[in-house]
Amino acid sequence: MCTVTCIASINIAVIKYWGKRDEVLILPVNDSISATLDTDHLHAKTTVMTSSTFKEDRIWLNGKEEEIKNPRLQNCLTQIRKRARNSNQWKVHICSENNFPTAAGLASSAAGYACLVVALAKLYQIEDDITSIARSGSGSACRSVMGGFVKWCMGSESNGADSIAKQIVPASHWPEMRILILVVNDTKKKISSSIGMKRTIETSDLMQHRIKHVLPNRIKIIEQAIIEKDFKTFAEHTIKDSNQMHAVCLDAYPPVVYMNDVSHTIINFVHAYNEAVNEVKVAYTFDAGPNATLYLLEESVPEFMGVLDHFFPPGINLEQYRKGLTFKEVINSQELFNKINTTRQAPGSLKYIIYTKVGNGPKYLEDPNDHLLNKEENHIILSEYL
Amino acid sequence: MCTVTCIASINIAVIKYWGKRDEVLILPVNDSISATLDTDHLHAKTTVMTSSTFKEDRIWLNGKEEEIKNPRLQNCLTQIRKRARNSNQWKVHICSENNFPTAAGLASSAAGYACLVVALAKLYQIEDDITSIARSGSGSACRSVMGGFVKWCMGSESNGADSIAKQIVPASHWPEMRILILVVNDTKKKISSSIGMKRTIETSDLMQHRIKHVLPNRIKIIEQAIIEKDFKTFAEHTIKDSNQMHAVCLDAYPPVVYMNDVSHTIINFVHAYNEAVNEVKVAYTFDAGPNATLYLLEESVPEFMGVLDHFFPPGINLEQYRKGLTFKEVINSQELFNKINTTRQAPGSLKYIIYTKVGNGPKYLEDPNDHLLNKEENHIILSEYL
Repeated sequence: MCTVTCIASINIAVIKYWGKRDEVLILPVNDSISATLDTDHLHAKTTVMTSSTFKEDRIWLNGKEEEIKNPRLQNCLTQIRKRARNSNQWKVHICSENNFPTAAGLASSAAGYACLVVALAKLYQIEDDITSIARSGSGSACRSVMGGFVKWCMGSESNGADSIAKQIVPASHWPEMRILILVVNDTKKKISSSIGMKRTIETSDLMQHRIKHVLPNRIKIIEQAIIEKDFKTFAEHTIKDSNQMHAVCLDAYPPVVYMNDVSHTIINFVHAYNEAVNEVKVAYTFDAGPNATLYLLEESVPEFMGVLDHFFPPGINLEQYRKGLTFKEVINSQELFNKINTTRQAPGSLKYIIYTKVGNGPKYLEDPNDHLLNKEENHIILSEYL
Repeated sequence: MCTVTCIASINIAVIKYWGKRDEVLILPVNDSISATLDTDHLHAKTTVMTSSTFKEDRIWLNGKEEEIKNPRLQNCLTQIRKRARNSNQWKVHICSENNFPTAAGLASSAAGYACLVVALAKLYQIEDDITSIARSGSGSACRSVMGGFVKWCMGSESNGADSIAKQIVPASHWPEMRILILVVNDTKKKISSSIGMKRTIETSDLMQHRIKHVLPNRIKIIEQAIIEKDFKTFAEHTIKDSNQMHAVCLDAYPPVVYMNDVSHTIINFVHAYNEAVNEVKVAYTFDAGPNATLYLLEESVPEFMGVLDHFFPPGINLEQYRKGLTFKEVINSQELFNKINTTRQAPGSLKYIIYTKVGNGPKYLEDPNDHLLNKEENHIILSEYL
């Protein structure tokens, strides 16, 4: 019997993956770039176990047994076994859970598939690139297989062999980078990102222009900005790429809309703040939902947090509202508030916020107490939600 | 002394005018197409008067004297006098008012400038094209100078001489066409369309693609659809063009956003309705604000009105809520409601609705009782708001 447990975290794209050129292999129409977040705050945890006594492959997700026949899961298992250096043909039991509520609308599948593939790779002693296997589970999962800033190169081969993720820089290269996730209350029915990107690529007249004439240059610029730690360029292109992804979604037929009025209020607020301090200190980006993710440097955090609380007053007590890293509180001047040309929102327009940073990628947990499966009972306990 | 009074109505574009190639002459970057609405419901009314006794040009707007030195107003007056067939150099008094509240966010400047120029043209006996003069007051005003479906040809001359509006078909060509304006409650600060289009053309990477590669073909298709009375094609391209205009706005830096959550709820509702009836019966379009304008055929109105009232329950009594044309009420089946895959809104998400049709263009009012100015007192009375 052999057991491996691993944690991996979500990643937040600054150049968006939006559109597949192959739906089965999950091959994208463009390169994308993201930062993988610290595993301390938003992670999936997965235990994989093989034993000669297991009769079949099985999987438990967030405490509930799920269908192992899921095609994307099968993609991963098949490829892992094909690449296995040992000839272990034992069945596998998989148990995975997130330490954050899935209802928050934070894309959890990237963390989940990255974690699964990293755990299985150890179990099956695979040592070469596994990002293409994670990709075949959930596209952007390939970027969560490593830490720091990561580029998913779209590749050109039809079998997807060269559609893999590569680290641009490790987290230690730009240790000041911080991430703030603003979780927005939302009641709208959600269009899945798979359906949204399919409809966009099939119906948006602007999409091809984005892919062919905007992204190649933007990718180079933002990669260089990350290497040079040029926050202004990084922030401006992060903002532009988020808005452009949502623009091509709006250009689809019928239009695909993920942001809501609160999202747009956050956008206005960030631009108004940057203008008031006469410097691009904060960047925003939105995925297939209304939540905002902000990129900013550690030195900007105390002032910005005070300003955020002023214009978006918490609707619950601060202990429940603020999750993740701590920071030193400061008192902002009324003069600063006055300079920020935006409207103060009613309390509670943000559900809660998570303050985190760029992380080092997946981590193996060696302590047997961390395993989610043991020999006797397959499924042990759920860790506490964040 | 000589007096002319005229009414002219707003027009609603199906191919949007968005972006100027010359800010002073108001020359657009693309052709646009609109329908001019019936003067019965949403019009500007303007009286112009000359007299040898007038010492200076003066203007009253909605009951208040305004600055005659306004550059766009001067553009119009200068061009009119240059083209005058009579050598009347008397000063002019202008009085104009709208029969709808400007706070409704319905673009009133198009109706206002069209009305002014049409009135002045009669006063100064100008008989050749005056749409380019209206254009120099407010771009889309050139399309309100005539009725029916109208195309504003962008032109290519640097002095703007060929940037003029032409009628595609009169209102009588497609007499079944109806228009429904849904006035949405809004609290957001508005970015003026002038600023919005300037920012879009200066910063959106997608804008050039729209202008060069999408619009030329779309203009041809929708013009043909109007001539052939092909509602489905007309509706689909109207919808696509509205969404694409807002998409390039979102792609601007900082992004320009006019629609709000209610606007998007209307969009979802229209698509859900068309899907439920398995036919494109209703098209929507949005200008630089959250209000929706719907195009639909007269035969679709009774059923659609019932469905609209079901999903967007009026917050006030129907007499105040429904303005404009009347229609025969029908009772829709519960089965139809069930088929429409959208959520019922809380009462009052729409402020009111205006039901109107395509009109015949500006009209001179010959009855002296209709004049807004008389010899003794310059400014007489404001007509009742709609």
